[in-house]
Amino acid sequence: MNVDVDRLRSDIEANATFGAIDIPEGRGRTVLTGTEANREARDHLVERFDDAGLEVTVDAVGNVMGTWISPGVDPQAAPVVAGSHLDSVPEGGIFDGPLGVYGALEAVRTIRDAGFDVERPLAVVSFTEEEGTRFSGGMLGSAVATGQLDPGDALALTDDEGNSFEDALEGIGYRGTGTLDVSSWHAFLELHVEQDTHLESADVPVGIVTTITGISHAHARLVGEANHAGATPMDERRDALAAASEFVLELERAGRDHALAGENTAVATVGKCDVTPNGTNVIPGAVDLGVDVRDVEYETMIAILERAERALERIGADRDVEVETERVLEVEPAPMSDRCREAITAGAHEAGIETVELHSGAAHDAMRVSRVTDAGMLFAPSRDGVSHSPLEWTDWDDCARATRVLAGAFAGLASESDCSR
Amino acid sequence: MNVDVDRLRSDIEANATFGAIDIPEGRGRTVLTGTEANREARDHLVERFDDAGLEVTVDAVGNVMGTWISPGVDPQAAPVVAGSHLDSVPEGGIFDGPLGVYGALEAVRTIRDAGFDVERPLAVVSFTEEEGTRFSGGMLGSAVATGQLDPGDALALTDDEGNSFEDALEGIGYRGTGTLDVSSWHAFLELHVEQDTHLESADVPVGIVTTITGISHAHARLVGEANHAGATPMDERRDALAAASEFVLELERAGRDHALAGENTAVATVGKCDVTPNGTNVIPGAVDLGVDVRDVEYETMIAILERAERALERIGADRDVEVETERVLEVEPAPMSDRCREAITAGAHEAGIETVELHSGAAHDAMRVSRVTDAGMLFAPSRDGVSHSPLEWTDWDDCARATRVLAGAFAGLASESDCSR
Repeated sequence: MNVDVDRLRSDIEANATFGAIDIPEGRGRTVLTGTEANREARDHLVERFDDAGLEVTVDAVGNVMGTWISPGVDPQAAPVVAGSHLDSVPEGGIFDGPLGVYGALEAVRTIRDAGFDVERPLAVVSFTEEEGTRFSGGMLGSAVATGQLDPGDALALTDDEGNSFEDALEGIGYRGTGTLDVSSWHAFLELHVEQDTHLESADVPVGIVTTITGISHAHARLVGEANHAGATPMDERRDALAAASEFVLELERAGRDHALAGENTAVATVGKCDVTPNGTNVIPGAVDLGVDVRDVEYETMIAILERAERALERIGADRDVEVETERVLEVEPAPMSDRCREAITAGAHEAGIETVELHSGAAHDAMRVSRVTDAGMLFAPSRDGVSHSPLEWTDWDDCARATRVLAGAFAGLASESDCSR
Repeated sequence: MNVDVDRLRSDIEANATFGAIDIPEGRGRTVLTGTEANREARDHLVERFDDAGLEVTVDAVGNVMGTWISPGVDPQAAPVVAGSHLDSVPEGGIFDGPLGVYGALEAVRTIRDAGFDVERPLAVVSFTEEEGTRFSGGMLGSAVATGQLDPGDALALTDDEGNSFEDALEGIGYRGTGTLDVSSWHAFLELHVEQDTHLESADVPVGIVTTITGISHAHARLVGEANHAGATPMDERRDALAAASEFVLELERAGRDHALAGENTAVATVGKCDVTPNGTNVIPGAVDLGVDVRDVEYETMIAILERAERALERIGADRDVEVETERVLEVEPAPMSDRCREAITAGAHEAGIETVELHSGAAHDAMRVSRVTDAGMLFAPSRDGVSHSPLEWTDWDDCARATRVLAGAFAGLASESDCSR
């Protein structure tokens, strides 16, 4: 089976226009859940599903699925599903998510066009808010679809301005009904960009994921006293930003120490920092930090978080700054299923494409899915390992190669009868 | 002369409603130049000027002046002017600025009502954007009115969103004509809240300022690489926020060292911190910091800034993060004039109100004014020294006492003939 690289590229480039940002270098987009850019991206996907003859469903939390049932296939058979997400981080890249969604669509079109014999429905899914930059800590749609989050609780989530997730979905016309039931799927495959340099360094076009690292998000709040920057002597300050700066460096140190102690899989980041009131001539009164900690070992994640929390307590006591932390997301490391890994290996073998095994440092919807059914992931190379940035890039030929492997694995899993599972 | 404390309070409380913020404790407001709140505050002042029979002028950069010419006084005589500003920092207090403007108005009404014999016009001024949180580094209106900034250059300034100062002023109807000529004023007086604890500690109701500390604002920009927080190993990061955190702590250390080495007058602050892209799961790619450095000695300010700049270069080199600093405001320390200090002392003596001499750690428009004519400042106590915060507070009786002293000094200076200067 040979995928149509031009058709795939045209889909990804069309999707890249939604929420596109104007920058001198690279190609970026900002597509947050429930925004106009998100509506446009969803509408375009639905249109492409229609064009390809896929039956479209939208669930209560805006997960969009397109299903293709080959003539003669039992519509009740457990489907094989592939996909990813269309939302982005602020000023993110054009491949992170869309490659997995449009790669899956291209795989379905390829399988159909090749007249390949399948035993099951094939479906393409786009999960809502994988990045989690507006309403949640991430993987929101897949959390609901896998039964890990109640749909009502999800819809009641609010963004920083107090807008509810439900209103935002309704505003763009993607508050559907029911919820996807991932546990009834035969298997799930997610193609994604690597966002790291292992494939590039090894000069191998496709990576097969062994384990996705666990991920924890915490929110740290530091409250000192806003005061006049000129009239408040240095020894009378309760500067929340100076305290936060100590914490940022302590967390970085904890991440580095555990990365060195293990196999360089542990990471710890303060990605978000909001200062109040944020005027040059005002001593910062409060700082809110978004903390991200990951590792392939759950124990290491917890050790880093606990060390950071202890450091924050000490900093707060030293500086007379009130501190609190709240863990807002905690997902344990997720091994991928042997069956799916074998299907990807077989797909690569058929296509004569070299692969390498690696872990995923980034969280993905496949992580949620792996808790309730068999899941597998494959990676395409990221230039210089850059992602979550307009400089994110994957060559179109690499997109095509990984999509060929996906199509092979997809077809292989879809040709399994119930007794072969 | 006895001021009307209820009238003064009612003016300040009316002004406090513009841009009022909803908070559980204290009373705060956000009044940035050219906003709707700023228009309301200006309209109300003009109305109060009209009610008091003052002639209103608005200059090219939105400085508002109300002039009262007592019958028989030569309208061409150099006026005595008192005032301050109506803009605020984000989430600032209700006294910082308005006390000086409405205190001056109350002083003029008191002098007029008392039938005090004056030789000169009396005027009340409200300078544009003293705080400098939107278009400038601060003291914008007084910089133009004292000839230290060209009006055209001022009007061309833009905010973070690219809106021009000129458009913002026009939008609220305060782009007037001509510019105030402060150098032609006989003298200037500014009443302000202390924003520190000297008066409270000494239990003295009025402070007479000897020197205003110099102030320097710098903008530091750090550019690393935005990347995926999960997929980028600790040793491959160029984290702009971690680098910025080191800088925040270095600047604080420099400020502390110089405060200890001198008479605890040196201060150094990072008040503003903007992270890009600012997502929990993205390594910060760029950070913009607003730096504020002050002291009564110019040499100390420069020493702190240079130490901070050197530290930033070192941090940038260590972390492979691009750094640059730009000094956006630099005002040398400003001694107040003997003549004005004597007038304030005499006013306090007449009223039987105790005073103490002190320096001002905060910059004020009087600083700009002191370069081109005689300027004096007096302070009312700030509860706990808090300012630039909704917790800023000055008792109404203290407001009244300081306004009585202002009225006495105002009347004294206005009774000077040209030969007495």
